[in-house]
Amino acid sequence: MLANLFASMPADTSCEAFDDLLDMPGLRIERIVSHGQKSPPGFWYEQDEDEWVIVLQGSATLQVEGHDTAVVLATGDHYWLPSGLRHRVDATSPDSPTIWLAVHRR
Amino acid sequence: MLANLFASMPADTSCEAFDDLLDMPGLRIERIVSHGQKSPPGFWYEQDEDEWVIVLQGSATLQVEGHDTAVVLATGDHYWLPSGLRHRVDATSPDSPTIWLAVHRR
Repeated sequence: MLANLFASMPADTSCEAFDDLLDMPGLRIERIVSHGQKSPPGFWYEQDEDEWVIVLQGSATLQVEGHDTAVVLATGDHYWLPSGLRHRVDATSPDSPTIWLAVHRR
Repeated sequence: MLANLFASMPADTSCEAFDDLLDMPGLRIERIVSHGQKSPPGFWYEQDEDEWVIVLQGSATLQVEGHDTAVVLATGDHYWLPSGLRHRVDATSPDSPTIWLAVHRR
């Protein structure tokens, strides 16, 4: 089926929007749209699945356990988050949507 | 590791460039850069792996077995090609690079 990543953008910008583009055994591909959101204070993602993430619009700042400095993702930047690697989103673009593509390997 | 999809663009535009961004058991993520190339006459892809493909710059036209009409992929369009589904690339943008992201499920 043909669909577009930039279509059906969420109208509600008060929270992040998570949409599965593909959900198969072994593989899930997700679009995430952020509007300045960041992880709550003290919250860390710690996932069972490996995740390859790319920012396709906007920008984001990640904090990754074991890294002294923040990981800043500009448009086109991609990053590998193996399962169990604790990370959090410290910032996303405040003025325009940040569109992420997240590929999860199960 | 942090890397950018739009960096290290191929200097040689006389052929398509295929670069693995990630290569893991079960999952391969590939960047493809086309400069007007298309599949040779009579050539069809018939792959052992499922492939989810998105065009992130430029445009492309696919011919897919069982579809009467061509599948035109504009920027942001994504398409699912299950293993074994014969398809070919009938055209890519002649004037600017077409950047694809291909996610292969093994």
